[in-house]
Amino acid sequence: MGWFFKTQRVIYKPVEEVDLSPDSDEVYLRANVKAPRMAGFLIKIAAWILESRILGAMLVYILKGENLIHKLVSFAELKEPPVYVPYHPWKDLKEQEAKCIPSELPPSEKAQHAVDCLPLCSDVIINTQQPTFRRWTIQDYSRAYISGETTPLVVAKSFLDALHASSTPPLKMSFFISYNAEDILRQATESTLRYERGEPISVLDGVPIAVKDEIDSKPYQTTGGTKWLHKLRHCTDDACCVKHLRSCGAIIVGKTNMHELGVGTSGINPHYGATRNPYDPSKVTGGSSSGSAAVVSAGLCPVALGVDGGGSVRIPASLCGVIGFKPTFGRVSHSGVLPLNWTVGMVGILAGTVEDALIVYAAISGHHPSNQPTILPPKINLPLLKSEKSMSRFKIAKYKETVDVTLPEIEVMRLAHYLTIGSECNASIRPHLEKMDVAELGCDARVALRIYGAFNSREYLNAQRIRNRQMHFYKHILERADFIVIPTTGVTAYPIMEDALKYGDFDYINGAALVRYQIAGNFLGLPAVTVPVGYDKSGMPIGLQFIGRPWSESTLLHIAFAVQVLSIQSYRKPKVFYNLLSKKEEP
Amino acid sequence: MGWFFKTQRVIYKPVEEVDLSPDSDEVYLRANVKAPRMAGFLIKIAAWILESRILGAMLVYILKGENLIHKLVSFAELKEPPVYVPYHPWKDLKEQEAKCIPSELPPSEKAQHAVDCLPLCSDVIINTQQPTFRRWTIQDYSRAYISGETTPLVVAKSFLDALHASSTPPLKMSFFISYNAEDILRQATESTLRYERGEPISVLDGVPIAVKDEIDSKPYQTTGGTKWLHKLRHCTDDACCVKHLRSCGAIIVGKTNMHELGVGTSGINPHYGATRNPYDPSKVTGGSSSGSAAVVSAGLCPVALGVDGGGSVRIPASLCGVIGFKPTFGRVSHSGVLPLNWTVGMVGILAGTVEDALIVYAAISGHHPSNQPTILPPKINLPLLKSEKSMSRFKIAKYKETVDVTLPEIEVMRLAHYLTIGSECNASIRPHLEKMDVAELGCDARVALRIYGAFNSREYLNAQRIRNRQMHFYKHILERADFIVIPTTGVTAYPIMEDALKYGDFDYINGAALVRYQIAGNFLGLPAVTVPVGYDKSGMPIGLQFIGRPWSESTLLHIAFAVQVLSIQSYRKPKVFYNLLSKKEEP
Repeated sequence: MGWFFKTQRVIYKPVEEVDLSPDSDEVYLRANVKAPRMAGFLIKIAAWILESRILGAMLVYILKGENLIHKLVSFAELKEPPVYVPYHPWKDLKEQEAKCIPSELPPSEKAQHAVDCLPLCSDVIINTQQPTFRRWTIQDYSRAYISGETTPLVVAKSFLDALHASSTPPLKMSFFISYNAEDILRQATESTLRYERGEPISVLDGVPIAVKDEIDSKPYQTTGGTKWLHKLRHCTDDACCVKHLRSCGAIIVGKTNMHELGVGTSGINPHYGATRNPYDPSKVTGGSSSGSAAVVSAGLCPVALGVDGGGSVRIPASLCGVIGFKPTFGRVSHSGVLPLNWTVGMVGILAGTVEDALIVYAAISGHHPSNQPTILPPKINLPLLKSEKSMSRFKIAKYKETVDVTLPEIEVMRLAHYLTIGSECNASIRPHLEKMDVAELGCDARVALRIYGAFNSREYLNAQRIRNRQMHFYKHILERADFIVIPTTGVTAYPIMEDALKYGDFDYINGAALVRYQIAGNFLGLPAVTVPVGYDKSGMPIGLQFIGRPWSESTLLHIAFAVQVLSIQSYRKPKVFYNLLSKKEEP
Repeated sequence: MGWFFKTQRVIYKPVEEVDLSPDSDEVYLRANVKAPRMAGFLIKIAAWILESRILGAMLVYILKGENLIHKLVSFAELKEPPVYVPYHPWKDLKEQEAKCIPSELPPSEKAQHAVDCLPLCSDVIINTQQPTFRRWTIQDYSRAYISGETTPLVVAKSFLDALHASSTPPLKMSFFISYNAEDILRQATESTLRYERGEPISVLDGVPIAVKDEIDSKPYQTTGGTKWLHKLRHCTDDACCVKHLRSCGAIIVGKTNMHELGVGTSGINPHYGATRNPYDPSKVTGGSSSGSAAVVSAGLCPVALGVDGGGSVRIPASLCGVIGFKPTFGRVSHSGVLPLNWTVGMVGILAGTVEDALIVYAAISGHHPSNQPTILPPKINLPLLKSEKSMSRFKIAKYKETVDVTLPEIEVMRLAHYLTIGSECNASIRPHLEKMDVAELGCDARVALRIYGAFNSREYLNAQRIRNRQMHFYKHILERADFIVIPTTGVTAYPIMEDALKYGDFDYINGAALVRYQIAGNFLGLPAVTVPVGYDKSGMPIGLQFIGRPWSESTLLHIAFAVQVLSIQSYRKPKVFYNLLSKKEEP
């Protein structure tokens, strides 16, 4: 029982004494995850053992010790008080080349403001080499509707055909958890009538948008990727962000697949199927917003909504070769989103292009009524992309100047975030679990929830004290730099193992590699965006991530756009791809 | 093992649906505490059993179940997200008859502003009947120094004589944990020289002020009422509030006794003695700021500082017949105060009169540098007491109009607060405990810390969700009422049992009665003040409590003053009382 009383600990230096310079002697601790990959029958046994009271408690205790949670968090000695919510006081950062629009404007007007910020398509495409592959954008849809080349109804029918093709053998991509053809066609018919009358509501009118099944959207139930949550928690209204999109005329085309309860990042869901990567259907999409990334990648929607609590938008975006954008904490209403956590999650946007992410961002951000005192900025800054003809070169020149810094305690932050999201998920979900048969859960969710339920209040509080330290570190670094450039993930899309399909798999090693670079965006509430920049040897996409200053979405989308312009020439078409604007030639 | 899986729970109505009207069908749940009083050998055994891993865990689980923690908090089902910090956005409440002073002013100037707000002594005393007993006030000291009746040095010597008399048999009042005669005389000498030069710094120059041993103050170590904490955490500087008082010329006369680590409210400290009530030395003072209340009650200081995390200023103030004032959360810097918790505690003021509380409040409130993003108001409102000659009658008339409301879930809030302060105390203190022999702790602290350490993250988070509900309730009630009038405590000073002296006692029933009405002041961060209004049959003081709107200290001190004017005629002299202004006749 020696291990039982082993209380190794780290004594942290006061935060002011930590050296953030490149010459810092801070140790870089690799994620040395000690947990075997488990799937198939093994994970069923593991779940069963972990759920037993005494043996389970001992096993969890050993796992926490082996994975440095004890040493780095539970028994840590530190002086900083907790900071519970990654709130950054709103300051007018005087971003250059930014446009301020009042947050009270209707979403359709905000979307139009965003469109006005964008460069003409020709400005970019003609000024650069012709890209070999490009997805249709919101503006492509809008122009095709206005010109009469096609109608929302025709597109909706193509969408349903494509969805059918992708859902059935041999593909079985498992993009969606639910969709309602009748509801889609009704929305498309209404939109088509608006175009016929010459009265489209906005650039988003008639544009198909998919929504992660963690966000309320009528007429669907919100499953959170489970087979039971919707039976206990009924969806009675659209989430705030969905309302905003509807008021712009967008067609909500269904609820996308996700990792069950967002507890994992592979996108393998034992109930609704493993979402398959359009670039190689034998590989994972990443998650948890797996379906939302995949449908954008496969051309089914120019944009989809996800939720990012630990990289859940950026990870699948990166693995599926699309844009993944997570705004500053508090920027988008969380009303109507499953409360799987309270202090790290944010609605995020998956899109084929930065421009489309910007349009949807403008439409969904802003004021909302909420029980929680959420902090919203008084205005939205939009990048004035249009003003610069040769923007890509200029921007790269501007940001060429780099500063070397040390980001301390990366692994500590990952563990603190894990403790936080786990504790909050458990507190929120547990009352439901107590009413149901655990066998309705996938085994990987059972394992995760068992670990989440084992965190004590001291561990939670220490995690928040670590949040304080990290907010201090990033504040100092972001005072010197406009943004931080890091990889999006530590691994590209990996194969879906056969044994994971039935019960899910618990692959903490790949999970940690996917999550490792995401955490600042969630735990510290910073805005972050991933842009596809290339492909690995096996042709799977690679994303590059930019983490910005709080409330500085303008600068962040600016640089993302510049990087996209540089990269777009090398974009490759996924193996599974649908061209919904069929009357147009594939671009 | 049936109890082990018993998961009775309450399903809370959404907060908007709770009826706050007087006709509400909300159930009033009495504090039905199920825990035997333990002292002497029994508490030693209890501590030992609780600290054993398996048996202790089972016992704690049973205690939590028996005391409704499981039902009302741990397994509760509720919709509200957590609110972690009782932060009330600063709004200019346009308090009537209030004076705004910039928070950047030096403390001495702020103190002078406060004095300017006060009615002349004669305005009050001559307009009312002559009180039978009155303690010397800050202004009495100041006037006596200026007139040359006495000097700070003479007062300091009287103080030391009185302290000696009170500390030795037969009294052994256990007021102080430490005091340094040399340091006191040095400060008094310097102050005396300032008066000789005709250059006193402020009305506080030369006034003896005692500081709870939870607040850093050189040259003393900060024990927190323990025998060991100061060995692990060194006091290297004055706390912010102490600095402010020193800059006004006040004489810091030592560190007052307190309940060990503030984990109890009796004021019985097994290491430094049970602080004895000046109204009856066989009875408790209440705590945890026991010594600070007792020294003011006994005339040793007109004012003392305490810290109020769960009524720890108001309880002993009420039991010792003095004013106890806890400002809005965030109003006074917590810098240099032992971090026994982070989200409920506040520096508070114990004083003989409301006027003195106001002067010290003005001196110590305001801006401070802090690691934590503490929210401070841009200005301090002070009541313009002077403007109303017949204030007492006017005020009572003004506030005669009452509204009946229902305060729901009082007992739920008490338990949620207990979970919160316990979890935070444990997270803060545990690393120290792991370096020492538990036998250095009093048994009641050992029992308390064992329970504190048993809270899981779900319980902590649920407690914060209950905080959200209560903040909502009080917001609605305080929109209709200027303040809430409730008892300060559910019991007056009770006898100190002999068996408690050696190991402390664990008296959860009296503890719950003392704490029951305190919680809104801590858990919701509301300002609160207790005023002595009478005596029980055995002659022990009774306090009446006023809970105000956030940032409305002005209104609150106004009403406290009015109640004091009405009550002062019946004030009685404690059995143990010292008259430090000996040249003056006892008032």
